[in-house]
This record gives sequence, structure tokens and C-alpha cells, in this order.
Amino acid sequence: MPDDALPNESRESLIAELRELLGERCSTAAAVREQHGRDEGWHPTAAPDAVCFAESTEEVAGVVRRCAAAAVPVIPFGAGTSLEGHVNAIHGGVCIDLSRMDRVLEVNAADLDCRVQAGVTRKQLNTYLRDCGLFFPIDPGADASIGGMAATRASGTNAVRYGTMRENVMSLTVVLASGEVIRTGTRARKSSAGYDLTRLFVGSEGTLGVITEIGLKLHGIPEAISSAVVDFPSVSAAVDTVIETIQMGIPIARIELLDAYAMEAINAYSKTDYPQRDTLFLEFHGTERGVAEQVETVGELAGEHGAGDFCWATREEDRSRQWAARHSAYHAALAQHPGTRGMSTDACVPISRLAECIETMRAALLDSPLDSTILGHVGDGNFHMLFCTEPGNAAQHAEMLRLNELLIDTTLRLGGTCTGEHGIGAGKLKYLRREHGDGAVEAMRAIKAALDPRNLMNPGKTVAC
Amino acid sequence: MPDDALPNESRESLIAELRELLGERCSTAAAVREQHGRDEGWHPTAAPDAVCFAESTEEVAGVVRRCAAAAVPVIPFGAGTSLEGHVNAIHGGVCIDLSRMDRVLEVNAADLDCRVQAGVTRKQLNTYLRDCGLFFPIDPGADASIGGMAATRASGTNAVRYGTMRENVMSLTVVLASGEVIRTGTRARKSSAGYDLTRLFVGSEGTLGVITEIGLKLHGIPEAISSAVVDFPSVSAAVDTVIETIQMGIPIARIELLDAYAMEAINAYSKTDYPQRDTLFLEFHGTERGVAEQVETVGELAGEHGAGDFCWATREEDRSRQWAARHSAYHAALAQHPGTRGMSTDACVPISRLAECIETMRAALLDSPLDSTILGHVGDGNFHMLFCTEPGNAAQHAEMLRLNELLIDTTLRLGGTCTGEHGIGAGKLKYLRREHGDGAVEAMRAIKAALDPRNLMNPGKTVAC
Repeated sequence: MPDDALPNESRESLIAELRELLGERCSTAAAVREQHGRDEGWHPTAAPDAVCFAESTEEVAGVVRRCAAAAVPVIPFGAGTSLEGHVNAIHGGVCIDLSRMDRVLEVNAADLDCRVQAGVTRKQLNTYLRDCGLFFPIDPGADASIGGMAATRASGTNAVRYGTMRENVMSLTVVLASGEVIRTGTRARKSSAGYDLTRLFVGSEGTLGVITEIGLKLHGIPEAISSAVVDFPSVSAAVDTVIETIQMGIPIARIELLDAYAMEAINAYSKTDYPQRDTLFLEFHGTERGVAEQVETVGELAGEHGAGDFCWATREEDRSRQWAARHSAYHAALAQHPGTRGMSTDACVPISRLAECIETMRAALLDSPLDSTILGHVGDGNFHMLFCTEPGNAAQHAEMLRLNELLIDTTLRLGGTCTGEHGIGAGKLKYLRREHGDGAVEAMRAIKAALDPRNLMNPGKTVAC
Repeated sequence: MPDDALPNESRESLIAELRELLGERCSTAAAVREQHGRDEGWHPTAAPDAVCFAESTEEVAGVVRRCAAAAVPVIPFGAGTSLEGHVNAIHGGVCIDLSRMDRVLEVNAADLDCRVQAGVTRKQLNTYLRDCGLFFPIDPGADASIGGMAATRASGTNAVRYGTMRENVMSLTVVLASGEVIRTGTRARKSSAGYDLTRLFVGSEGTLGVITEIGLKLHGIPEAISSAVVDFPSVSAAVDTVIETIQMGIPIARIELLDAYAMEAINAYSKTDYPQRDTLFLEFHGTERGVAEQVETVGELAGEHGAGDFCWATREEDRSRQWAARHSAYHAALAQHPGTRGMSTDACVPISRLAECIETMRAALLDSPLDSTILGHVGDGNFHMLFCTEPGNAAQHAEMLRLNELLIDTTLRLGGTCTGEHGIGAGKLKYLRREHGDGAVEAMRAIKAALDPRNLMNPGKTVAC
């Protein structure tokens, strides 16, 4: 669709109304629309007809009301770091970019909570919080917006101890499909007052409304933090160490698996010299004595499973260097395959089935022309395979999809979920039904129809199956 | 309504169908109906027309389908320990008693999870689990059924560390209003796959469907457990100790406040001789060294706030005795007022506002002919006032409702919720709207209408406002 071309007169008059509301902050420039028409996943760009840069909940409501009147879709956009085509405007419509809603509205240190606008990013929030001795633990890797993380039910490396967005969002301000603004939840830590609308909107991917403000739990920065890298003779040896650690109730903060291929890529990319074996990256939070005890116990468990030497880091800069290596895994894998695009799978299984799931996929890779590194948040049973494919290479693309389908079938057979943290978006619609069954999906669709009867909120996503 | 009398012919033919399905397990005996027509709260009995004792999900679905065809309400019943009239058949209908669905279906020790039928009680589950070294922490006091606890989003004394039913339910089997059976969630620890139906049904109080099976997180029985009772010069001194404990990230398992009046009642009832001051009951879980460190730190914090001597218990029988005293608080208060019935409020506020909320209510009690003990799960900001009123004493009843209304107004003003763990039921309908606002309540009602279009699932509860 060319710049500024709109499908019909009503859309043109809608854009005029949005310009009246927002002035220059309603853009139809091709570059802006293209940039907002895709996320970091592999799904093709689908540019919206216009992009509105909202600065308040009232402005979001104003845009949604005008779109509702014109029967035009609305697609919320945070940092654009989703992976399953969540922001792609596959039915056209108006993108609401929330990145300018970037204010931390309140921090209540005594209650360990805060309230932020949806465009605040997790790194921005943690910078803001540092002086209070508090932090927000959810770390999906990318510097995602808090609104986007809520909408996607994101998690990442700290979830094994601190939970996901499901556990850490306390309340939301949401603009519904009608343009009405509601607030879900309170500042109370728990409640039995009615349906859990907060948890319903968390993970709804913009299909039930636009999240504009988020109340969050915070956590005290621990007195002591230690991190370590340790290698194992096999994935099962590493995973068995993880299982025993979790079973013993050790409150480990991060426990990440990177397979030997991922370590090879990291060493090449980050100029490190870790043993190129299946490896755990660990982090311990607590008091000085508590961390020392955790370290001792996990050291013993790892030793029983044939672990190599622990490479420890306690000073902040050393820990940051270790975790930078971990977080570079995606780009490290891409660097081994110049000119390719990355695609990440997102299986999550009961931890007792994790080694079996990974070994099944490794066996499949032996017979495949594609290769993959494997890494994951193994304390939760969640892991990712990274495929690097050449743009336009249909055979590679088809093989990637075949392997993803095999992975998801395996995952569901083992009692897991097709997506631990990336979401359904447009990319996993068919797996939603396979995972939950017709009845549960029809219940979801009934809820969608009840809250968005004309299917204007991010249509084609989540429950469009 | 007299025994066996049914409002119309269609109900009579429904009972005949239910008898065909269940035989003697469909009862219309007056005593059975009366017993199922009320919970442990103060709301008047409203007996169902019949009580069906189901033994499987399929039987529940069979009952629901027949009720749907006859347009007759369905009311699920677990242990009958709810407090806000949740099970009262205020529009008549068929009660489904789930207490015979009492099988633990699976325990997966490596994954720290299990699956149970809805009628399993929490004590039964913990007895079953003991030999595996695992336990299920949610402890609402009463020996409630797991299905009822899920439906009410229950919590209790361990929630400050282990979370509520919201955090501990992983998956559900639910019979919908149509009689269709769905399963929500998987055995994965986290998921971003579609709307969070599990969390929607948790806390829905039977108004969206009948929960028949529950997948739960479990926890390892800690290596060391210590409990203690310690008194303070004031509620604020006790609460400030709690706030500092939570802020320091001490993973305390239980931290319960009982005010001086509650301690007086407990001493009289349990023949104990605790100082009759505002008191905390504490419990620490962890490794031997970890518990020792927690104990030391909390001891220092309490000392700074003028605490008396700690009364420690580490052996299981001593700890049980301490907690039995805590759990006797409700009956201890009643024993001070022979011939009365108890009514418990259920406010939950941000912890920084807890002392203010309690002091406001204590001031109100000074001017009231009623008195009350105060106790609570203060690590979560949740506390209860216990009122003892004479049945039929309209003035006392009105005063109790006035004080409850003052409490809820105060709670909402302080950013809290009208119910931390008891639920809305039939008793708090008007407060739901006051807490969430019209827009959020209308969203809840739209969801109710989408999943139960003829309003047959526990009508008159939760969102009937």
C-alpha cells in the first residue's frame, strides 16, 4: 500500500480526525508505517495505515473511539520487540505507538510497588529505581516496554525466582474497544473481588484493549549477588542439576542452559573461552550467608553430575560481563550465519521432561540441513532453539517451520505449552487450538467477542483461529 | 420451601432425570437441602431444590446439561466453608456436591506438581503428600476443598511466601454452562498461549462453570521450620516490624497479627498465658542456617520496635500447638460471647496503610456498642475483624454492617480491596462496583454473559450487581 493511500473515504476522514486530535503525532509517512508494521520475528511486514504517537490514556481513548466509529482496527505498539508478529497490521488499521508514554507515575518503596505508563522500558524502570534499592526483575532480554511485556505475558531469565508478568502485574489501566477506560486491580497484594481482569488482560496481546498504565510489584536489590558459569558433560547432566536445585527449594534467581553449540557461538562472538560443552549460567540472590549456602549446595549437586569448574563473578562489572555473554547468544548465532535472519522457538515443558524434549530435537537436527543452538530458562522448563535462515530461501523456511512443528508436537505430548513467553501473536494461531482444545479456544473467542464485538482490537491475533 | 416441593413441572421432571443419572445420590431430603443451603457465613439459608453427589467430571457434566435443558440454576458445593453466602441457593436450583470427588489423581514429585479432584480437602492432600516430602501451602484455616479454594481464590497464613490460589493453580478441568468440559492450562510452569482462562476461573465462585479437577504447584517440606510468638506495645510497632521484614526480602513463611483483644480471647479459650498485647505469630522455613539467619534478623527488627520476648517452637508438636492457638482465634472470640454467631470482615490494604486502617477501625469501635478482635495475614496487608452478634438482634446486625461498610470505605480509600480472600459471593456485591468502577464491572458482566448466557451458573453471586 503506497504512502498515504487509504482503502476508502471513511479511513481518510478518520485520519483527518486523528490529525485534529494529535497534529503531527499522527503520521502516515511510509517509513514510519513500515517501521511499525513488523516486530523482531520472521513474519512479513504489514504496515498500518497510520501511526498515532499517544502521550496519555485520554489520547489513546480518543484514538480508539474514533477508530471504533470508523470500524478501523487498532494495533498497540510498545518497543516492537515481540517475536510472533504481534504488531503487524495484517488487516490494516491504526497503530498506537505508546513509547512516548514513558513516565514512572509513582513508586511506593514501603509497599514494594510502582505504577508506570505503558511505554516505560524495563531498563528505564530499573535505572529509575536503583537509588531506592529496588528493582523490577522481569528480563526478557530485549529492552521491551512494560506495556508490551504485560500484553505478551513476558518473562525471561529471572522468572524461576521472581515469576513472570502474570505474577508481577498488580493492576492495569486499559482502554477498551469502545474507548472506555477501566482500571483493574488495586494496590492490595491479593484480592478475591470478582473476576481477575488483570490476569485476563495480561497476555491478551492487544486483542481485548490497549494497556496504558501498569501497577507492578518491585523487589529489594539483594544484599549479595553471585553469578557463575559451569559446564556439564551432557544436557541431561545439566538438567538433572537444575531439577535437584529446584526440588531442594534453593531460591536460585537465574538458571540458564546454553548447549555446546550456543557456547561455541558465544565464544566466537564475545571473545570468551568457556568450555564448549552444555553449560549453565547461574545467579544467586540473598544475604551474604544465604548466597554462600546456595552456592555450596548447588556446587555439590553439579559436582555429582560431572560438572567442570565454576567460573564465578561477584563484582557487578564481572557479573554484567557474564550475562552480556549469555544475552549475546541470539546475535552470536546469527553472526555464525552472515546474511541470515533469526527465528526463535519457545517450548516450555514440565522440567522432568526437559532433557527428553531437547534430546528429541537434537536427534531431529542430525537429520536436518538446518542447525540450531539451544538455550533456555531451564528452571521453568522453557527453552529456545535459534534457527538462522536466508531471506527468500523457501526450502530453509519450510524446514524451520517443520522443525518448529515437531518441537511443538513433542512439547504438547510431554504436557507443555507451545509458547512459554513469546505469545501466540499471528504466528502460533493453529497451535493454540492444538494445545487447549476446541472448547477452551471457543471460550476464549466468546470472551473476545464479548469485549470486542466488532473485532477491531489487534484483529487476526491470539484467538483468530 | 417444603421438602420435595418444586416450583413447577419442569423441575420435577428434571429431578426424575437426575435420579435416573445418579440414583440415591440425587437427594431432595429436607435435611440434606438445608445443610447445603448455607455456608459458614452470616447469610440466611437458601436451600437448593435438590443436591447431587457427583463422583466424576462426566457426572457433573451430565447434571449441568440436564439443568441447562430445564433452565434450572446450578450451585457447586465443596466443603461449605465459604463465608459470603457463596453456596446459598438464592434462586433455587440444583446443588452439585463435589465432596465425593476426593481422589488425588497424580503427584509428579520431580516437577513439584499434582492433579486432584475438586473435593479433595487441603488437609487430606497434605496427609497424602507427607511421605513424598512435599506439601501444599495454602492454608485458609478451615479444611476447605481444593475446588472451593480455587473458586474463591483463597489464601491464608502462608500466602506471604507461597502466594494464593492465584499463584498455585496451574490448570483446571471445568464444566461450562453448556455441559461442555474444557481443560485450561498445562503442566508447564508458565505459558503465553492465549487468554489466561485458569486465572479467570480461579475466583469466579462457580458463576462461570464448575471446577472439577485442579492442577497445583507443590513445594518441598523445608529442612528447618521455626515458629515464634512475640508481643508488641502497639499495632503500629508490630506492623512496622512486618514492613521492614518484607522490605528486607526475608522469605518469612507466615507473619500473623493478633491484637490484644484477640490474645485475651485466645488465652481464655486455649488456656495459654501469652502477654495480652498486640502480637505477631511468625514462622520461618528454610535450611537450618537460613532459618537461623532469618530468626536473628527478625529478632533484631522486632527488638527495635519494643517487642517482648520471643516464645519459640521448633519441634513439630510445639509448633502445632502455637498455630492451633492462632487458628482458634475465631472460636475463642465466639466463646467470649456465648450464643452469638461470628462474622468476619476481610480488608486488604497496601502494607504501608495497614496500621492506619486498623487504628481507624479501633477508633470506631470505641464509639460502638459492638466489640471486635482483629487478626490478620499482615505480610499481605490482609486482616479480619471478628464480630459476634446475637441471632435475631437487628440492632447488632445493623451495627455490624455499618462497621463493615466503614471498614470497606476506609480500605478502598487507602488503595485496598474489599476482600482479600473470602470473595464476593452474595454478601459483597455492592462493594464490587465501588471497588472496580462501572466499566470494569460491566466488563466482568459481559464475560459472564458470554460464558453463561442464561445466567444459570450460581446466579446472584460475584457479578450480580
